[in-house]
Amino acid sequence: MSSNDTIGQSNHQQQTLELSIELMRRDSVTPDDKGAQDVLVERLSPLGFDSEFMYFGDKQATGLHAEVKNLWLRRGNSDPVICFAGHTDVVPTGNPDNWKIPPFKPTVKDGYLWGRGAADMKTGIAAFTVAAESFVKKHPDHNGSIAMLITSDEEGPSINGTVKVVEALEARNEKITYCLVGEPSSTDTLGDIIKNGRRGSLGGILTVTGKQGHVAYPHLAVNPIHALLPALTEFESAVWDEGNDHFPATTMQISNINGGTGANNVIPETVEVVFNFRFSTETTEEELRAKTHEILDRHFTDTEATYDIDWKLSGHPFLTAEGKLVDACKVAIKEVTGIDTQLSTSGGTSDGRFIAPTGAQVVELGVRNATIHQVDEKVEVDDLGKLAQIYEKMLEELLLDS
Amino acid sequence: MSSNDTIGQSNHQQQTLELSIELMRRDSVTPDDKGAQDVLVERLSPLGFDSEFMYFGDKQATGLHAEVKNLWLRRGNSDPVICFAGHTDVVPTGNPDNWKIPPFKPTVKDGYLWGRGAADMKTGIAAFTVAAESFVKKHPDHNGSIAMLITSDEEGPSINGTVKVVEALEARNEKITYCLVGEPSSTDTLGDIIKNGRRGSLGGILTVTGKQGHVAYPHLAVNPIHALLPALTEFESAVWDEGNDHFPATTMQISNINGGTGANNVIPETVEVVFNFRFSTETTEEELRAKTHEILDRHFTDTEATYDIDWKLSGHPFLTAEGKLVDACKVAIKEVTGIDTQLSTSGGTSDGRFIAPTGAQVVELGVRNATIHQVDEKVEVDDLGKLAQIYEKMLEELLLDS
Repeated sequence: MSSNDTIGQSNHQQQTLELSIELMRRDSVTPDDKGAQDVLVERLSPLGFDSEFMYFGDKQATGLHAEVKNLWLRRGNSDPVICFAGHTDVVPTGNPDNWKIPPFKPTVKDGYLWGRGAADMKTGIAAFTVAAESFVKKHPDHNGSIAMLITSDEEGPSINGTVKVVEALEARNEKITYCLVGEPSSTDTLGDIIKNGRRGSLGGILTVTGKQGHVAYPHLAVNPIHALLPALTEFESAVWDEGNDHFPATTMQISNINGGTGANNVIPETVEVVFNFRFSTETTEEELRAKTHEILDRHFTDTEATYDIDWKLSGHPFLTAEGKLVDACKVAIKEVTGIDTQLSTSGGTSDGRFIAPTGAQVVELGVRNATIHQVDEKVEVDDLGKLAQIYEKMLEELLLDS
Repeated sequence: MSSNDTIGQSNHQQQTLELSIELMRRDSVTPDDKGAQDVLVERLSPLGFDSEFMYFGDKQATGLHAEVKNLWLRRGNSDPVICFAGHTDVVPTGNPDNWKIPPFKPTVKDGYLWGRGAADMKTGIAAFTVAAESFVKKHPDHNGSIAMLITSDEEGPSINGTVKVVEALEARNEKITYCLVGEPSSTDTLGDIIKNGRRGSLGGILTVTGKQGHVAYPHLAVNPIHALLPALTEFESAVWDEGNDHFPATTMQISNINGGTGANNVIPETVEVVFNFRFSTETTEEELRAKTHEILDRHFTDTEATYDIDWKLSGHPFLTAEGKLVDACKVAIKEVTGIDTQLSTSGGTSDGRFIAPTGAQVVELGVRNATIHQVDEKVEVDDLGKLAQIYEKMLEELLLDS
């Protein structure tokens, strides 16, 4: 490592730490941004980034349909567009007295930066901002464009956040080529895991309706629980696919089942089952729905009970199996950390699900996720500069002529 | 029919109607007797009936363990003992404004006696009282003994009522030979059906415990709903017996099933199933429990989930297939109404379940049950005298030398 590199890393670390602290001081619990996005505009506007706030939702509403502030920053007008996607909102702290430090007073101690958003994901935003600043200063005439898509509704209903920004970009034919989602993907050490896809999530509420009656006279009633059981047992034990090299096999889990009047001598009229598929790219929403109905229809031919399913798709599966973005991640991580990163599609959902359908390559790469959403959320201070270095190296890989 | 019979029936009808009204004026909702039992003592003491109030339960308590007033009346010291069993308590009226008449202002109208307890079962008590009075006046030196076991907790928890009186009688070796339960057994016309047995009732609460987790990571959790399904499906479809000439096949019904945190992405830790057997004399409580455990144990060998059952027996099945009591019912009904009565063991439970295990023959015979527990409960006025006639004829059959 040359002395220039050492100075670069040291600068990146100090700058990323300072910007992280500035962002983390804001108690920006979903959906209130508390000005965090304005900090980014102030930093990047002087470097030639155009900024656009996009407000979606109802200014008068709270909860599901509350107004959300989103930010679209872009430097350059040509392709390819590399876009960092992230969120300034954080999950609630729970009782602050349970924290070792006040959760919105970010503190460096024992080699860690402590505070809400330390891992998920204000440090990621800070690292990319520092990386972009450094890259633009060195290469003001880079190819393509650098963008940031920042929402304050990733941890909440996700109705008026990234999905709406993507719709707005699509409507004006503005495309993202490479999407770097800054979510904390690392597990044991920085860069060990990147997420190059996510399973789909399909939920359903199954309601079976029979005929209420007295348990002493079952022939006068139709017990919806009894009618449901054979179908549900087959449904539960069905094999949906075998997965593939990138995805584990599709799974279905029943999270809730509720039927009964409370009385122990009454056959209830209805029973409700809440279930959820996490599905691979080996199947589709349509196939899962069709197979579910096939199983139920077959069992419900010989009962007077009827069933109905209220389906809700949370996200299609997506996969960036290979390509320039994955390659850039691998090269950058290897150069900065020495690690050969692993690709993974495990875990819950992220806003990547909204961006992948536009045709963008999508990868998630960020700090360690060991403490996300927990009391005493923290991140290794040493990782901040390294992450900024990784991000800058990716910009070089994707926006400079080789 | 001789003129004497006509006068007898007319007198029986008028007297039963008047006593019914006196009992029904008391709003004796379980467990408060409101003095109804005292009326019986005043009527029967002068005719040589010894009376004994038996109080069980906690004077300070309400609900399950509240004090209950019970009455034991007996005339004679020898066997056989024919005992009328009944209850002075009634179920609540619901909103009295929904009634055509005030529910505790018994009213004769359109050929019916209206009011709470008209069918279940103050008219039955009145009819037997009138029958006993008439019989004793004609046959003061009858064989055996005439008894009445009256509780005010048949419609409630049934903890401090008949079951406790039976225990007290057993403790002093006082036996009931023939038990005539005055519950409304008739369906379409008075005397068409008598109940000569009841199914047993065995309840259980099955709790399955797994390991809570996220639906996206089912391999890290143990879903108790999934663990339960194969066992529950076999349990639900099992054949327990085929019944016999007196009983339909044993049935099992699931009345309640509840599991889930409410969140659609969480695998719950537990699921609870409430079920109930109504069982014939072809099986036993022990056999049902053993077979249930056999099914569950077999399915729970290959899961980390565990199960537990909290069993509760409400009553063993009982049957008085034939004998002097059934014969006396048949003869008396035939003579008074011209009907060949039918034996039945269908329906819910009654206090007969507590008396049958002592070795008594037990039959239920009473007015029509079409309106029991309903708003506008009522009974045909014409049936009151006939029922008293039937009861008196039974006393003749059982307590006079043939």
